[in-house]
Parts: sequence; structure tokens; C-alpha cells
Amino acid sequence: MAFSIDVPPHRQGAKLPVVWYLSGLTCTHANVTEKGEFRRACAELGLIFVAPDTSPRGEGVPDGPDGAYDFGLGAGFYVDATQAPFADNYRMRSYIEAELPALIAEHFPADMIRQGIMGHSMGGHGALTIALRNPDRFRSVSAFAPIVAPTHVSWCKKVLPRYLGEDATGWRQHDSVALIEDGAHLPELPVDQGEEDQFLPEQLRPGLLDAACKVTGIPLMLRLQPGYDHSYYFISTFMEDHLRGHAERLG
Amino acid sequence: MAFSIDVPPHRQGAKLPVVWYLSGLTCTHANVTEKGEFRRACAELGLIFVAPDTSPRGEGVPDGPDGAYDFGLGAGFYVDATQAPFADNYRMRSYIEAELPALIAEHFPADMIRQGIMGHSMGGHGALTIALRNPDRFRSVSAFAPIVAPTHVSWCKKVLPRYLGEDATGWRQHDSVALIEDGAHLPELPVDQGEEDQFLPEQLRPGLLDAACKVTGIPLMLRLQPGYDHSYYFISTFMEDHLRGHAERLG
Repeated sequence: MAFSIDVPPHRQGAKLPVVWYLSGLTCTHANVTEKGEFRRACAELGLIFVAPDTSPRGEGVPDGPDGAYDFGLGAGFYVDATQAPFADNYRMRSYIEAELPALIAEHFPADMIRQGIMGHSMGGHGALTIALRNPDRFRSVSAFAPIVAPTHVSWCKKVLPRYLGEDATGWRQHDSVALIEDGAHLPELPVDQGEEDQFLPEQLRPGLLDAACKVTGIPLMLRLQPGYDHSYYFISTFMEDHLRGHAERLG
Repeated sequence: MAFSIDVPPHRQGAKLPVVWYLSGLTCTHANVTEKGEFRRACAELGLIFVAPDTSPRGEGVPDGPDGAYDFGLGAGFYVDATQAPFADNYRMRSYIEAELPALIAEHFPADMIRQGIMGHSMGGHGALTIALRNPDRFRSVSAFAPIVAPTHVSWCKKVLPRYLGEDATGWRQHDSVALIEDGAHLPELPVDQGEEDQFLPEQLRPGLLDAACKVTGIPLMLRLQPGYDHSYYFISTFMEDHLRGHAERLG
């Protein structure tokens, strides 16, 4: 598993807060690293920035049977698969929740008491679900154009049964809206969403998140950004703003 | 020849000012494109950003005989070579001064009346010499850690004879300090230089530029930046500031 990490200049012995960035469908660690424009802001704010891959990789790793962009390689959906042939390799939940944090803590000057998480699209889904399930780990959460309700959208209706089995009750652990309905909480939640995003009405549906947050009192700051699509131009535009929010909440 | 171009959103039919970015030794168009953090600023400021390669490429293109990083592929030094075996391919001066601008003007919404140029290291040398030789083309010039006096530093003493021949009088067209001494002028010249740059004392020597500008009345704004080295972390830190200056001067 390849990942990217940016460690800004710091005093010898200092420990820096960590922001995790989870990428969307088809991405590797490289997309945000090459196009996210986070380095100057992270250097100024003193944040470590970690960008994992979005699925296992390698010749022995099974792909979706049809080579689709939204299933198999590049489309791990941040779950631990239980179904063959994916169960052996597709363990992105364990990777992000346990394996990679342990490695980061051991090898980098990371203050693991101060972690934030953000993500885009499928990675926004990953960031929200992982944060909702691990409220003690993350002090700060944000997202760009996240998938918020996998059990209601076609991207996820296609893949969740093949990764997790047909029983939809197990999917609720991987559905932000369902997790919130089931009692999970976040202290605050800034979300940016491009109004020209082609995936907005069918796959992203931020209104479902808005409704769930209103009912349960999660302070969602949903900003609809006119003119922006689903691309990294959208992300690089608002990246610094998100990082400033994380830095403030992480102290 | 591969190059990178970033064209920000604009009204139908609008023509945008163009900033040229020339890269340093070993680079292709990709280095600044992946690490320069110029997109958000260019979108905000309405600037087209063009990043050419630093030498010809391809299987038939001769490299330096010893595979050195500072001679041959990736080290075109923005000259038109006159010496075998380089004269056929190494025509970076013509490429930047004529061939690529013609292509940009034809295929992109570029206002060629409003061009600026900047560069890093060997690309700073390219930006300064090309601007000094073409005062009517560029309204705006800046540089990061430029080579300013090739005839005085070992990088260039090694390669200029092999590209241009032993007669050093021909080199003065490719030496910013010499061009200034010979009467070339720039309206103003912001230059950032990292104080921890390993190449500062031997290869870059901004003091020579400072002295020439003082004698001839070129308003050089030389900023020595404590703690910064020669890397793209230095560039991405000050990129937005340079682009704001270009946008202001280009109007």
C-alpha cells in the first residue's frame, strides 16, 4: 500500500497534529498530492497531511469483473469486505482505522491525540463514516462533495452487496446518514459541495445529510458553491479553508 | 515537446494574460504542475499558466556524454545550441521565444499583449535572459533563485562551451548580468532567494545581479528568505505572491 505524507518543518522533538485526506473513486494517493494544493497551508499551519490509496493494489488483488471505475481497484469504499473474492484484500476500514495510524504514529512526529479527517466524494463518505464510528479519535471532520447515504444511491447499491453481502443491516455501519440516525455524533461538520457537480442529484444528495443533522443537532455547515463541479479544481480552491478549520479545531 | 497549460474559467470570447514558468535543471513540465500550487491563484487572478519542458526529449535526442543532471536532457539552459551533436535539437531559445508562443496564441484564449515570465534556477536564468532580450513581449518578470551570471558559475562554464562553442563573447546573450551591463532593461524585478539554498554561494550569486541592477537603475526587489532551500516547497510558498505581482503588472 502506497500513501503520501507531508510533514512540515517543525522543532526537533515536536509532535504535530495530523489531517487525514481520503480520496474518491479511481484515485490513488497521487491525485490530491499533485493537485490538492495543501503544502503551503500545511507548512503555515503546522499540520501533517496523510493521503492513503483508495483500495488495495497489486497483481494478486481481485478487480471488479467488468473493469468498472466504481467497483474493485480504486473503489474500496473504506469497508472491510466480507465476500469472496474481496474479503482477503479489501480491508480499507482496518487500514485507515488501525494499520496506517499505527505506522504513522511509529515513524513520524505525529500527535495522535490531535487528528482530523477529510475526504472527497467516496473519500468524503470514508471520512464521515470513520469519524462517526470513532468519535474519540477525530476532533475535526470536513468533506468535499461526500457520498452521505450509500444505502440510497446507485454507486453503493451496486458495490456494497458484493463487498458486504446482501443483508443491508450490515451496511448501516457504512452509511453516514444511518450512523447519525443510530446516534453517532460530530461536534461540527463543514461540507463544501459544487452546485455544478454532475453527481450531486443522484449520488451525493447532501440534503439527506442536512436532514439527519438537523434532527440530531449536528451543526452541519453545508456550503453550496456555485459554478464548481466534482473536480480537483473545486478541491484546490477550498483546501486551504478546510485546513484552517482543522488547524483551529485541533489547536 | 510536452508542456502544461492551465486555462482558468473565463467568459466566452475573453482573452487572458499569460504567465510563462520556466523550470530548472532535471525538470519537465510536470514538476511545477504537480508541486507549484498555482491553480487556485491563477483561477482567482484570471491568468493562463504555461509550463514548458527544459530540454528536447526523445530517443533520437543526444544526452550529455556522462549522464550528468546538469548537461544534456533536462538541462537545455534555454539556448539555441550551435555545436554538434546538440545543434539539431537543443533549440530551447527558439522554442520559448517563437515556436511555443505561436502555438499558444493559436490554440488558447491568450492575450499575447499581456505576457509575464518567471522561472526557477536554470529557469530563472531563462526567464531573465528571455525577458531582457524581448522587452516588448514581457510586461512582467520575476524569478525564484535564478542563475544570474552563467559566465561566472561552474554549472554554465561546463555546458555553455559545449552548446555554444568556446568563444565566450556569444555567451553574453545568455547571461542576465552581461545583458544588463550591455544595456538591457526591465521595469521591475522581484526575485526570491532561499537563504539555506545549497546553490546560493557558488551557482546563483544574486549579489552580481544586485550590483548590475544598482548601476543601471533596474528596480530589483531581492528578498532573501530565511530557512528556505532550493526545493519546490520554497516555490509553492511564494508562488501566489509572485502571481499576484504578475497579475497587477499585466492589468
